[in-house]
This record gives sequence, structure tokens and C-alpha cells, in this order.
Amino acid sequence: MSCHPVLIDGQWRPAVSSSSFNASNPQTGASLDESYPVSDWADCDAALEAATVAARQLRSMAPERIADFLEAFADQIEKQAEALVEMAHLETALPTSPRLADVELPRTTNQLRLAAAAAREGSWMAANIDTQAGLRSHFAPIGPVCVFGPNNFPFAFGSVSGGDAAAALAAGNPIIGKANSSHPGTTRLCAEAAIAAIEATDMPRATVQLLYRTSHSDGERLVADPRVGATGYTGSRGAGLKLKAAADAVGKPIYLELSSINPVVILPGALRERGADIAQDFVVSGLMGTGQFCTNPGVTILLEGSESETFVEQVRSKYAEAPAGILLSKSVESSLTAGIETLVAAGANSLTSGTAAASGFSCPNTLLSVSGSEFLKAPETFQTEAFGNCSLIVVAQDVDEVVAIAASLEGNLTGCIYSDTQGSDDDAYDRIAPELRTKVGRILNDKMPTCFSFSPAMNHGGPFPAT
Amino acid sequence: MSCHPVLIDGQWRPAVSSSSFNASNPQTGASLDESYPVSDWADCDAALEAATVAARQLRSMAPERIADFLEAFADQIEKQAEALVEMAHLETALPTSPRLADVELPRTTNQLRLAAAAAREGSWMAANIDTQAGLRSHFAPIGPVCVFGPNNFPFAFGSVSGGDAAAALAAGNPIIGKANSSHPGTTRLCAEAAIAAIEATDMPRATVQLLYRTSHSDGERLVADPRVGATGYTGSRGAGLKLKAAADAVGKPIYLELSSINPVVILPGALRERGADIAQDFVVSGLMGTGQFCTNPGVTILLEGSESETFVEQVRSKYAEAPAGILLSKSVESSLTAGIETLVAAGANSLTSGTAAASGFSCPNTLLSVSGSEFLKAPETFQTEAFGNCSLIVVAQDVDEVVAIAASLEGNLTGCIYSDTQGSDDDAYDRIAPELRTKVGRILNDKMPTCFSFSPAMNHGGPFPAT
Repeated sequence: MSCHPVLIDGQWRPAVSSSSFNASNPQTGASLDESYPVSDWADCDAALEAATVAARQLRSMAPERIADFLEAFADQIEKQAEALVEMAHLETALPTSPRLADVELPRTTNQLRLAAAAAREGSWMAANIDTQAGLRSHFAPIGPVCVFGPNNFPFAFGSVSGGDAAAALAAGNPIIGKANSSHPGTTRLCAEAAIAAIEATDMPRATVQLLYRTSHSDGERLVADPRVGATGYTGSRGAGLKLKAAADAVGKPIYLELSSINPVVILPGALRERGADIAQDFVVSGLMGTGQFCTNPGVTILLEGSESETFVEQVRSKYAEAPAGILLSKSVESSLTAGIETLVAAGANSLTSGTAAASGFSCPNTLLSVSGSEFLKAPETFQTEAFGNCSLIVVAQDVDEVVAIAASLEGNLTGCIYSDTQGSDDDAYDRIAPELRTKVGRILNDKMPTCFSFSPAMNHGGPFPAT
Repeated sequence: MSCHPVLIDGQWRPAVSSSSFNASNPQTGASLDESYPVSDWADCDAALEAATVAARQLRSMAPERIADFLEAFADQIEKQAEALVEMAHLETALPTSPRLADVELPRTTNQLRLAAAAAREGSWMAANIDTQAGLRSHFAPIGPVCVFGPNNFPFAFGSVSGGDAAAALAAGNPIIGKANSSHPGTTRLCAEAAIAAIEATDMPRATVQLLYRTSHSDGERLVADPRVGATGYTGSRGAGLKLKAAADAVGKPIYLELSSINPVVILPGALRERGADIAQDFVVSGLMGTGQFCTNPGVTILLEGSESETFVEQVRSKYAEAPAGILLSKSVESSLTAGIETLVAAGANSLTSGTAAASGFSCPNTLLSVSGSEFLKAPETFQTEAFGNCSLIVVAQDVDEVVAIAASLEGNLTGCIYSDTQGSDDDAYDRIAPELRTKVGRILNDKMPTCFSFSPAMNHGGPFPAT
């Protein structure tokens, strides 16, 4: 089958390309029929030229028109919802319900409409007017934004439909989407919805463009190109750090969400008070989406004692009972297996011995444990991200050790602390929270890290390398 | 004479150091008597340890107390004003009046008091409270901030007294100042004022620390240290880019003001209307402080025609008449000479043939010119910063060429456009301004780039490499 065309300057045109790739069906492991091109630099260059023209036009456009476009884009996604959900399920194996059709797609259109409201309202510009000094300052469009979306949210973080794209567009910047290789078809359908909205609202043709894949070196060249305004990336740490180095070298802004193990501290009073409920919350959070959330609880820190032993046993038995889910891709399966091997080689004990799903990409539900003192001997290694249905329990001997573990952490998106309602955990909380705060983008009290609300008060970011 | 001690954890203690340096008197070129240490890593490490403790204490401190300290610091600087001005004049040759005593020192204490007001007022935290979702977000202290100050503002951008230091302190972060090597004595006196204020207001001892110099490799290690929150740097591009690379590699925030040639576009209608006034403004702006301002008008773009010829001749004769000023240091003199040589070698014509000052660090006032088409053949080379009393005039053949020149520019702090009041320049303005806007941090209409007001609406920053 011939390759799909790329979207450059409003037209689906044959890619300039010498190779192609196919996505897989994660439920079977089989390659899908549709082929997508790996673009040469010529495609990147053409997209950049078109985006430069679009950026000039968008710069002086009334915010109202940008908002109309974003709303039309949301409408088009809803019109194509059935086809989009079907394709995303085929390419990611994420459940249609509850998830793709009734959670993620509505979230995505909601994001686009919130972006439209933000464009209309204009406070993102942070205008500051000093009439006495004759000064006006405000933020303004920055130029074409490259968006590299992740594998785990085909719509809501998608390269042309997701949060980074919506934010860039709302601020008057054209986007160049680079599809995630695990769901090129889903991204193509989203781009078709974008083009329909561009035509309906008479926007510059290159407001949204789409390439499927490039060589690594062309990707690095792209984010560092003088015509680029900024880049948004969500994905693996290795690939992200290479893009960051390329952008940093020429001073181009790049915003990356790379990895996060989302430490959860559960204090003994909370376990005595409601240990079984917390264990249930933990299992739901840890295995949701087969653990493939950027806010998955990767490391849980407990204090030595019988409450903690009971908690670990409750979680272990639930991990053993629950069927192993399907992973997004072969590479997620390989990274997860490698991550578990690294943790075990460093001294973590495996508490589970389940099996993977009978077919497709899968790994057994895995619960590991290590003592606090062992963790502190190799904190970097024990922070290896095992993206998927695996969690590491760290059992500390006292609160001092918990504080030391918190101090040894890299940056994370979230940090959670469970404490009791009677005050017996308060001293420990007051010592642990200030340290944990400096390591995470948001602190959650008595909630699992996957807990998320849409609100301007929600911070989804954290210290490097989380973002 | 023995070396001055460094300020670590509230104490002036002998540096761990194997070498030292002396500043020079720019008016004579002679070395000054006082020796200052080049610290080994042991000093950096000790300062980082002390700063980590101070950061923990500052994190939970009432903003009111931080504000009180900043105001006490301003008071102490005023108490020591005479000694500070005398030392700064000795080390920089900047005039006592109008400048060090009556402009820069009051500006510096004003900045510290504005920082105190900002700390009290708290809107920098951008608190966002969503009671319905139970969410609160706000900015918070980031940890110890390293400050590398520049040579050209010994107080107002000074490593312990300047804007970066004031901003870091207002947000509850301890600072580690690295003195500029051209005025270590001034920085020492500022640190003494800081310590007096720390004692008077009972702040953590390591709230303000001071090292004078380190090896380049220790500087790079310092900004990348896990204990550091962020770094502020103002200075040369070469040294700054090395620090940036070191900080970027580990994802540490670093904010740098590196270089800026501050393009000024003067349209023909404005020259016909008030060319002599603009020429006078230009000469004042270009030679003020011997051209050693980050907003010095380094490149001026004119359109071919008799108005422009008259303007250039007016400026040329004033540059020839004005005595050459004193430069801040030997290295400024060397860089300026090298910058002029690079521009001339690339094809710029020198319009002036004056002489340097009879003694001390100095360079003749220099006006260069090049055609727009020549500029566009090597735009990178013609953007070589010649920091000091040198300006390059670019004569474009038409507005298209001005737009192309604007498009070829790197990031700058400022961009200025002069146009007439009758509207004959409006078409040109409307084509040039949108392009120039994308290249600069602030656009000034009918003003020279050195024009500056203190206001929350004033943006002092720009696209890379300006910042």
C-alpha cells in the first residue's frame, strides 16, 4: 500500500521521503496496513516556510477569529468522533469506554474550547499599561510551534489536537505537528478535522500542518531552526533530551514533559485509619491505563511497621489478581521490561509473579520493594522510570529517612502525602512536605497522583526532568 | 598585600584559593592595590551548603520579614553611599555625577525598595485558588540563586545589590554573588551593607554570600549543582554561553543577558522633519557611558537619500568632536577594538578618524557604515557586537531591504523606529514594525534605545541571545 501524504500549507501532498513505517495493533502485536512516510528535511523546510507566512498573518489577526477557529476545530472533532475513537482504539488498545469516547475525546474538545475562551479573553498576554511613562507591555505570538505528542493520550495530548497545540494556537502561533509513531492514523484524522475548521473559518492554510516522522537529526534541526518560535514535547526522556540540547544550543524555547515517578508518601496514621481504602485507590491509580500515565504512582514510600506490611500485602494480592493490561506499543513493552530489570538488578525484590496478557504487547503487573537505606545507596538507579504497570515500594525506617529520600529525588510532576485525620501524622507531614514540595510541580493531599481536575489552578508541570 | 576574605555563611573568612587578582584603575590602566581571591571549589561548596540551609529557613518566612530586610539593605547602601561611590568611580571610571552618586545609586536603592514592596504585595506568586476543585497554585521560592553581575553597572546590576539579586531575594531565595572582576571592591562594600542589614533584621546568615572569582570550570559546576535553584547572568556572550550549556545540560534555570545591538530604524520623513534633533539624540545615546550600555544603539538603519546623508554627516562631525571616553577595563578595550576590526574586515567603512583618550583604557569614537545589500551578504558578521563607543550605520536602498535586514537580525533587547508626525512614514512603519517586533524585547517609537523608565510595564529582556 502506498504511503499517506503529509499535510503542508493546507494540502495533503506526497511526502519527500525515502522510507516509511507502519503502526501496530497493540492487542495482537501485528503491523497495521496503513503506511506513513518518514519525511526528509525538504518536508520540514516546506512546512517551516509555510508556517512563517501563516505566523505573519496570525500575528495581526483578531483574537475572535482564532477563537472561532478553535471552536470549529472542536466541532469537527465531535463530528468525526466515531471514526476517531475507532482508529485510536485500533492503534493504542486504550478502551473505548470508559476512556477514548467518553473521557479523552470530550476532554480534548473541552481543552480546545477553553483555549478559544482564553484567546478571546486575552489575559494570557499579561498586558501592563503605564500611561504615565507611555509604556505598554504584553506577551505576543512567538512564531511557529513544533509539537511532538506522546503515545499515551492520542487525542488530549495529540500533536495537532492536544493541549500544547491548543495553547500555541490560542496565542496566535501556527503549529507543525509531528505525529507519535504509535498512532499516526489518529493524528491524521485529527489533522483532517483541523483542515476542515481552517477552511470553514478562513484561517491561514498553514495554521496546522502535520508530518508523521523524521530522522532524529532532522528533528533536532527542526527545533533549532531560526524560523521556529518554540517547541512542545511530551515523550521519552532520551529522545526529549536530544531535542532539548539542540534547541538550547541556539536559545530556542522548548518545553518538555519527560518523565516522572510521582512519589507517594503514605504515613502510618492514615494506614491505620483507612489502609484498605488507600490500597484500593493505589491499585486503581497504578493499573489505570495499564500504568501508562505520566502521573502513574511509580514510587511509594512507607514507614516500617505492621500497617505498612498489611498495606503491601493488600496491594500485592490485588496486583496478582488483576489481569495484565495491553501496553501501547512494542517499545513501551521493551522499556518497561528493561526498567524492571534495572530495578531488580539494583536490589529491588519482586513481590509479584503474574503473567502477561495472552497476546499483544503486555507485561505482568509488577510490584517491587526495597528498603529506604538500599534506596539511598543508589537513588538515581531506583528512580529509573518503569513506564507501565509496575510500582516500587520503598520502606523507610523513620521519618528522617523519608526526608532524605525526598531530598534525593529528581523533579517530578506530582508528590502525594497521605496522613490521618486525627493529627498523629502531622509532625511527620510537616517535616516531609516542605522537602517534597521543592521536588514536584504539585502536592496532593490524601489523593493518588493520577487525580486531575481541569482548572486554571491546576499545575501540570514540575522541576526538571519532569518538565 | 594579602587577599580579601570571601563572605560565606555570614562570615568574612579566608578563601580556599591558590591564586588572586587585582582590578585596575581604568583612568590610568594601572593595577589597584587590593587583591581578591580566585576561589577553589571548596568555597563554592561551602557557600552552597550554607545557602541550602538559608533556603529552608527563607521558604517558610513571612514576606514582611524579607521586605524589611530589603529595605534595611537599601538603607545601609545609602549610609555607605560616599564610600561606595568613591570605590565604584575608582574601579570603573564611571562619572560620580551625573551617574554613580545621583543616578545609579538611587536607582539601586529604589530597586531594592520596589523588590520589598513586591515581596509584601505578593502578586509575583500568581496565586490561583479554585475552591470548587480544592486546588491552589502559586509560584514559590526556587532555591539558592547564583548571580553573575556585569562590568557596566557596579550598583544597579551588581552581583549582590542589583536587579537580579533583588528579585531573587524578594522571592525568598538566598543569593550567591560572583563579583565582576572589574569592580570587586565595590561588590565587597555592597556585601558589607547586605550583612549589616541581615544582622539588623535577623535574617539567615547565608541570605547573601559573595565569592570574587572562580575558575571557568568551577563556575560551570556551580550553576549546574543540584543545590542551586537558578542563575542570573549579565555579561559577555562567550562566558555566558558556557554557563548556559552547563545549566541546560542538567535542566537548571538560567537567565542570561548576553548581547544586544539594539537596531534603530530612522525613516526619511522623521529626518526631514527633525533630523538635527535626532542626530543629537543619537550622539548622546551612542556615546553615553562611552557606549557601554546594554541598550547602546549599535546598528542604525537608514534609507538611501539626501536626508540620510545629512544625518550621517551630522553624527559623524559630533563623533569627531566629542572626546573619547574611558572604557571600563582592558578587556572592554580589546573586545571593542576586535569588534571594529571584524566589521571593517567584513566591508564596513570607517567614517571617523579620531583618537583615544591620552591615558587609561580608551578607543576613538567610531562610526562605521555599510550598504544594506552588503549587510545582507553577511548579516551574522555585521551583527558583531562592538560594545563601547562604536556604531554601525546601514543604508538600505528601499523599505523591502529594511524588512529583510530586520528579518535577518538576532534577538535584541530593543528596537527603535523614528517616523514623522504627518504620516509620510506610516506605510514603511507598518511594514517594518511587525518584523522588528519579533526580534526584540521592546519597541520604542521616536526614542533612542537607552531611554528607560522604571515601571512594571518596562520589559528589559528580549529573544535569544539578548536574554
